[in-house]
Amino acid sequence: MKIGAHYLGNGECEFTVWSPTLNSVAVQILQPEQQVQLKPIADGYWQVKVADVYPGTLYRYRLNDQEAFADPASQFQPQGVHGASQVVDHQFQWTDTGWAGVPLESIIFYELHVGTFTPEGTFNAIIPRLPELRELGINAIEIMPIAQFPGDTHIESALAYRNWGYDGVYPFAVQNSYGSPSDLKRFVNACHENGIAVVLDVVYNHFGPEGNYMGQFAPYFTQTYKTPWGNAMNFDDGYSQGVRNYFIQNALYWLGEFHIDGLRLDAIQAIYDLGAKHFLWELAEAVHDFSQGGTWKRHLIAESDLNNPQVIRPPELGGYGIDAQWSDDFHHALHALLTGDRQGYYQDFGKCADLAKAYQDTFVYDWRYAPHRKRFHGMSCSDRPLSQFSVCIQNHDQIGNQMKGERLSERISFAGLKLAAGAVLLSPYLPLLFMGEEYGETAPFMYFVSHSDPDLIEAVRAGRKQEFTAFHYAEDPPDPESAETFLQCKLNWELRHQGQHKVLWDWYRQLIDLRKTHPALQNSDRNSIQAISDEDQQVVIVRRWCESREVIFAMNFNSSPVTVILPIQQSARKLLDSGSQASEYLSVGEEVVLQPTSLVLYEGEV
Amino acid sequence: MKIGAHYLGNGECEFTVWSPTLNSVAVQILQPEQQVQLKPIADGYWQVKVADVYPGTLYRYRLNDQEAFADPASQFQPQGVHGASQVVDHQFQWTDTGWAGVPLESIIFYELHVGTFTPEGTFNAIIPRLPELRELGINAIEIMPIAQFPGDTHIESALAYRNWGYDGVYPFAVQNSYGSPSDLKRFVNACHENGIAVVLDVVYNHFGPEGNYMGQFAPYFTQTYKTPWGNAMNFDDGYSQGVRNYFIQNALYWLGEFHIDGLRLDAIQAIYDLGAKHFLWELAEAVHDFSQGGTWKRHLIAESDLNNPQVIRPPELGGYGIDAQWSDDFHHALHALLTGDRQGYYQDFGKCADLAKAYQDTFVYDWRYAPHRKRFHGMSCSDRPLSQFSVCIQNHDQIGNQMKGERLSERISFAGLKLAAGAVLLSPYLPLLFMGEEYGETAPFMYFVSHSDPDLIEAVRAGRKQEFTAFHYAEDPPDPESAETFLQCKLNWELRHQGQHKVLWDWYRQLIDLRKTHPALQNSDRNSIQAISDEDQQVVIVRRWCESREVIFAMNFNSSPVTVILPIQQSARKLLDSGSQASEYLSVGEEVVLQPTSLVLYEGEV
Repeated sequence: MKIGAHYLGNGECEFTVWSPTLNSVAVQILQPEQQVQLKPIADGYWQVKVADVYPGTLYRYRLNDQEAFADPASQFQPQGVHGASQVVDHQFQWTDTGWAGVPLESIIFYELHVGTFTPEGTFNAIIPRLPELRELGINAIEIMPIAQFPGDTHIESALAYRNWGYDGVYPFAVQNSYGSPSDLKRFVNACHENGIAVVLDVVYNHFGPEGNYMGQFAPYFTQTYKTPWGNAMNFDDGYSQGVRNYFIQNALYWLGEFHIDGLRLDAIQAIYDLGAKHFLWELAEAVHDFSQGGTWKRHLIAESDLNNPQVIRPPELGGYGIDAQWSDDFHHALHALLTGDRQGYYQDFGKCADLAKAYQDTFVYDWRYAPHRKRFHGMSCSDRPLSQFSVCIQNHDQIGNQMKGERLSERISFAGLKLAAGAVLLSPYLPLLFMGEEYGETAPFMYFVSHSDPDLIEAVRAGRKQEFTAFHYAEDPPDPESAETFLQCKLNWELRHQGQHKVLWDWYRQLIDLRKTHPALQNSDRNSIQAISDEDQQVVIVRRWCESREVIFAMNFNSSPVTVILPIQQSARKLLDSGSQASEYLSVGEEVVLQPTSLVLYEGEV
Repeated sequence: MKIGAHYLGNGECEFTVWSPTLNSVAVQILQPEQQVQLKPIADGYWQVKVADVYPGTLYRYRLNDQEAFADPASQFQPQGVHGASQVVDHQFQWTDTGWAGVPLESIIFYELHVGTFTPEGTFNAIIPRLPELRELGINAIEIMPIAQFPGDTHIESALAYRNWGYDGVYPFAVQNSYGSPSDLKRFVNACHENGIAVVLDVVYNHFGPEGNYMGQFAPYFTQTYKTPWGNAMNFDDGYSQGVRNYFIQNALYWLGEFHIDGLRLDAIQAIYDLGAKHFLWELAEAVHDFSQGGTWKRHLIAESDLNNPQVIRPPELGGYGIDAQWSDDFHHALHALLTGDRQGYYQDFGKCADLAKAYQDTFVYDWRYAPHRKRFHGMSCSDRPLSQFSVCIQNHDQIGNQMKGERLSERISFAGLKLAAGAVLLSPYLPLLFMGEEYGETAPFMYFVSHSDPDLIEAVRAGRKQEFTAFHYAEDPPDPESAETFLQCKLNWELRHQGQHKVLWDWYRQLIDLRKTHPALQNSDRNSIQAISDEDQQVVIVRRWCESREVIFAMNFNSSPVTVILPIQQSARKLLDSGSQASEYLSVGEEVVLQPTSLVLYEGEV
């Protein structure tokens, strides 16, 4: 049962909608005007085939002979969240036939917000930049959510729509200001032609506050749990099977019709499901079945605040079978050392030992007491390979959740940026870069949003203000509802060729190149890494090895030079040096001077 | 850190309380009057040792120099939920030194409500009845919750307190109307001397609505989840460690100070914990550690509505490590066949195939669509031994949740009662009998409760009425707040020697005896049972075997006689016959006539 408007060709379209508690559902075709009743089929689904309906046709569903609403499974909302839905034809000339995907353990993510990555803010505008991203060495673009979100309908331009994407209300509809469904396909096709996978960020834990008419159709929401962002989705109560099916179809829709390579599942800790078979388990089953039936493997990566390995364990070990998950502990441990931040969740970090633990055990909090959370947190994931975790030093949240959306380049020295890049890209985890990070972009990435409902606009402003008042900031945060805030976040792409920015870009490329080619850096066995730390010296040393080779990298977070002896097995050769001061060759027991805020990497035989 | 008032001997008492967000805590000793400040020690705990405090001393805690409240970890509330707490001396002359416990797989539960089991409604009054229970063959008494609950303080007698026990508000305090802490010990000691284990029903998912002052002390409750009975406990949010510790100490308190053999954990589906290490996991760890340090094994049995084997899997398979769990599917499948009930949750049952599946797969709903729940439900538990599940045909809930609290003896024929007993006691699961079931007690077990708050009394009455109005009952339910309702539920213990009651008692004893002695009935391997059914004939046939022997029992739920051929391997001998009509010996392929509503059991070699 394919939900939504399914164009069959020859002017015929099949409409299917899930409304288990309604008495009647009719489809209203806007032009030429006609209304056709859907018939109940099974399990609360309604369906009808209608003739003389061509791609581009606008429609709504009339419920119980009363009000009409856009399709919850709408594939396009050309007039925004309050407008009608549009019938989409999915025919497309794919030219990625040789595409074999990117194996999970090789992925290097590049997170990108379509609206601010280019001046145009469209899928099409990204395409010319792909060769350079390929040259940098990344092999997966992770696009922030593109499900239709609300906009300020008082503005008659693409600027009306300003949203990170987490307020989407039509999970099947490509955001109209970013392009059409075909534009997204063209973009994915071009990525594949450039050897780049596309991972889509999808939000299955809540819906945005404006333009959300789901509740009119079916019991999509539950009252049993609360999310921080709105009503929780109904994954485990009566009628939950329709909700589960809705999101599973959504996942398969992106993978199938758009050749998307993987999904990043937003904040799965807010996907509340206390039934015996968690929704994520069922989702992973469906995606893996789909993947096995196809020509390349698709991936599911969960953003999780739980530090729970159950998310990524296979079902036979009681897990959900998700392929990989984010590990924010790595970010927090590294960020705290680089910036000295100790407020908010950084309170739980700040020691070199934390970063060393993040390298070796992944979770710093593995049922340890976390002062900021005021509770014990996490579990050991020592049975999971290192390649099941993704880490970063910047992403939309870590930048944007600061009051002024300052990137790391505004917070720390150039030497610090190089150190940070090395720490992430030499880690055994799947690294994620945030657009512009590779050349030290100076534009902020602030929290921006636009609504048409004046009360909601005021509530968002007040909420944001309140958030930072709690932290005793003297200033007010930038106005999230202003277009100016959004425009300030657009990348200055030309910077990448200039001065220090270019030096940083080259450093990123060098790191990625080494990561891709050195065998010791490709080993993701849990027992192929060792990390030690020294709080007095503010040093973390990491050793990674494979059968025949090893690399050892030392990171100095001190603002003074420090002297260390690296635990090499045999004499070693320097491959990387962010401070360019250490000797090229090193004998066993020989001292190395680490410059302030620097990283040096040696390699040798085991 | 032992919470509560810990009597150290020689008139010295240590007071410890968890109040992580308060500025001051003082203990108010009522007689001779004194007030002593507690000192903050660590993790939000406060403590002080006070001299001249003897067992029996009444005390309260004064919080932030304002109001004073009873101790959340009070061990006795002689004046009820609104009164002061009392210091208890745990010295006791135990005489159960040889006690070795009852192995989980051998347990036969007898569920008992202290208030209605005897005219006196006390622990002491149960003791004279133990020899007869032992003669019946049960080896574990499961007592319904005994944590101090509210009462109608307008009545000056034991009759003031009328409650099933699920509204308790002092989980460490022995219900004052049932006896003292020493009385409970005397009862447990007597049970052990009679070869009977004691399992205590504990409620860790919510607190009752009256006399609940916990929230004054600490963040015991969360707003993230809702239970059907009140605020959910805070098991996974900030400060949850104190809440978890509170309940873990509670479990160990009963096992340690009272020699309790096991805990029945009430409705664990409402113990909401989405952290990486579920509270039940931590609880099971603590109880098993305690158990291993002791001289006999203690058990944790969960009442769970989840049909989720994760509850009872070991931690290495991602489970919580609970020893056993209830399986209501067995009850519902059997009850629906016996009574013809199809309303409410019985809607999901009613086929002989359901009962056959309950014997063979345990969960009838193992990710099958459940019409009453309007969702898919449960997961297969085929990797768990049969002895990890407990079943019954009557318990406090299944009887008491009917409008008039009718026992099965009021609903079905005498032949049906015998059939039901056989179905339960010949099952491979841990059987549970509800007090009086064994002789066909005629008193109902209705929902009764007593409060002192008039608004609450009215709310409870209205709620109960509302519950049954929804089912279109013509009559009103009995008044749950009336003493008469409670008194009607007292057992007529003398019935057990009379007429048909005695016949039924003998049948139960015969069944229990066979269960305990026949090797095929002691095998709890998942692959030692096979069940088949015939909807036309309304017959379920179960075969159980061990290495050398097998038993086959056939159950006829039809009101007419039916003829069946039992799948015996060799000629077999009849061991049980509730209808006394089938031939004593049976050859392979020989027909057997099953009388209406009857059970027959043959045994033979494999």
